[in-house]
Amino acid sequence: MRVHNFGAGPCTLPFEVLAEAEKELLDYRGAGMSLVEMSHRSVEYDAVHRDTLDLLRRVAGVPAAFDILFVQGGATLQFAMVPMNLLAGGGSAGFVLSGSWAKKALDDAALVGDAYAAWDGAGSAYTTFPASGEVVVRENTRYLHVTTNETIGGIRMVDFPDVGVPLVADMSSEYLARPIEWDRYDLVYGGVQKNLAPSGLAVVFVRSTALDDSTERLPAYLRYRWHADSASLGNTPAMFPIYIMGKVLEVIEDRGGIEALERESADKAAAVYEVIDTSGGFYLSPVAPAVRSHMNVVFRLPSQDLETAFLAEARRRRMVGLKGHRSVGGIRASLYAACRMESVEALTSFMREFAASAG
Amino acid sequence: MRVHNFGAGPCTLPFEVLAEAEKELLDYRGAGMSLVEMSHRSVEYDAVHRDTLDLLRRVAGVPAAFDILFVQGGATLQFAMVPMNLLAGGGSAGFVLSGSWAKKALDDAALVGDAYAAWDGAGSAYTTFPASGEVVVRENTRYLHVTTNETIGGIRMVDFPDVGVPLVADMSSEYLARPIEWDRYDLVYGGVQKNLAPSGLAVVFVRSTALDDSTERLPAYLRYRWHADSASLGNTPAMFPIYIMGKVLEVIEDRGGIEALERESADKAAAVYEVIDTSGGFYLSPVAPAVRSHMNVVFRLPSQDLETAFLAEARRRRMVGLKGHRSVGGIRASLYAACRMESVEALTSFMREFAASAG
Repeated sequence: MRVHNFGAGPCTLPFEVLAEAEKELLDYRGAGMSLVEMSHRSVEYDAVHRDTLDLLRRVAGVPAAFDILFVQGGATLQFAMVPMNLLAGGGSAGFVLSGSWAKKALDDAALVGDAYAAWDGAGSAYTTFPASGEVVVRENTRYLHVTTNETIGGIRMVDFPDVGVPLVADMSSEYLARPIEWDRYDLVYGGVQKNLAPSGLAVVFVRSTALDDSTERLPAYLRYRWHADSASLGNTPAMFPIYIMGKVLEVIEDRGGIEALERESADKAAAVYEVIDTSGGFYLSPVAPAVRSHMNVVFRLPSQDLETAFLAEARRRRMVGLKGHRSVGGIRASLYAACRMESVEALTSFMREFAASAG
Repeated sequence: MRVHNFGAGPCTLPFEVLAEAEKELLDYRGAGMSLVEMSHRSVEYDAVHRDTLDLLRRVAGVPAAFDILFVQGGATLQFAMVPMNLLAGGGSAGFVLSGSWAKKALDDAALVGDAYAAWDGAGSAYTTFPASGEVVVRENTRYLHVTTNETIGGIRMVDFPDVGVPLVADMSSEYLARPIEWDRYDLVYGGVQKNLAPSGLAVVFVRSTALDDSTERLPAYLRYRWHADSASLGNTPAMFPIYIMGKVLEVIEDRGGIEALERESADKAAAVYEVIDTSGGFYLSPVAPAVRSHMNVVFRLPSQDLETAFLAEARRRRMVGLKGHRSVGGIRASLYAACRMESVEALTSFMREFAASAG
């Protein structure tokens, strides 16, 4: 019996996708071998690779001005690659310091080039994003980096700063679960292991004109242009995550695409926040309603003992992955793309019941 | 029906491993979810991760002085990371230019630090390795980089140059198919997608003392020390290839370990070379017997038409992946760890038959 998986990532994938992968695992469509045993230059894999690129372009509405890259190493390697490529010709990178992921991105960028915090949420313990006008960029800023959803703080960027420079976004934890305003970006990146595929892959959307000749001094794998020129086949790609992502994208497209996914996500999150807000203070969200994440709903109970009891009872009811991040404690329910409404309903009715019996 | 897979990588995996993975794909050992849907910090995945590290240490006989790292990006990212880390404190890197993989490694290293060819096989069209004394290293050389097996040229290093500096080896295409003389190395690396696992992962063995404080200026993912300090769990690892590699290593251990694998590989290759050498010139190997690869047997037929006919007839008999690399043409039979003797026998008897009918 399948659990209700509220893990913060890697997380639940559509069951129909896994079931299809299971059928194809030993013999890929009559080829007499598994897809993962094939050359990445085989006709079969090539079709998977190109179809997945096409699906990404269609589902995310990616303009022709952007290249789509498959790069291994997750968002963490992108923390280095983004400044290596975008600052190769000079300039600085400003960062909206909205939480621990943004902090990691800034730390790495500062080792590569000139990078600084254009706003710092430390004062509010990273429970909010900057209001309009609060982000200040220095002269000669090449781009402003934002983390559109912070998994630990459970916050979601709503107002995207308009400071006269292109944006770069880490969207890992809400990847393709909200539309992207392409004309504001030079680059959008994210690990796929939350909404889209098994771990081991980042998808990078980069504006072609953002890559100039100054990146030619970068080693091959670290150079976006190298990935773009080879359609991410310059070396053996992460075939299994790409293959699964293709199937997940088909499911997303069938269900109505990104807009539908955004609505669904908002509905799922609203159901949990409603229980929190009508619990008479038994459950508490540290996040202001306007910036509450649709993906990671964080909340506290009146005591750690109650939180421990809550997690144990949830586990007994086959709800897993609810423990808050070790740095902040509490409870975190991650409601990624493949988390079904029936799982959310199981959670909310359990939350009501638990509050009634313990409150 | 399963094909005989002679692809140059990714390539055939042990069928029993895939069959086990198929059984576990939808529900990992009763957890109610797939392993790839679990947190990389879950008890279940953590056990897989640690067991795989332990198996690698045991099977490869890795001394305690070495850290074992799982890094995404294949050997290609290592072409950059090795010099970034090992030259961070200064010094040069010498390269044995034995073929196109060595060339790529040198090109990237030269973008990162001071790197040069300590020997160049261009004169022999990369059909051989240097004889003893032919490798010349400059003063202040930090390490000598060797590619122990070249998949395109089909050659295998037998004499490891003794030039008074530590060796660094790219062993991708014969990874764990031959013992490693650890005391000669500061670092050994390779992509796993030929002998060990699906694509999307490199395994790096690095001598701990080779990493000094000078690497602290590197961004997290590019810093070996960061991977070592986190047991390769600093960010979400490539869980699926690591999981499959664990199972493959169990198979290798059950079959007698690296030494047995080396003997088997030598036997499989010898069977094909024997057909070549006793074909009366119908099949021709461009490689001197002393340095013939055990993994990639390359050969030519008297004409391109015959090569095309050979490949078509092989395909009809369910033998795939035999086409030589596009840069050199001809035929290439890759006999990686999971390629069974029955596949080799199918190939050799077909080769005899084809030569008799066409010769």
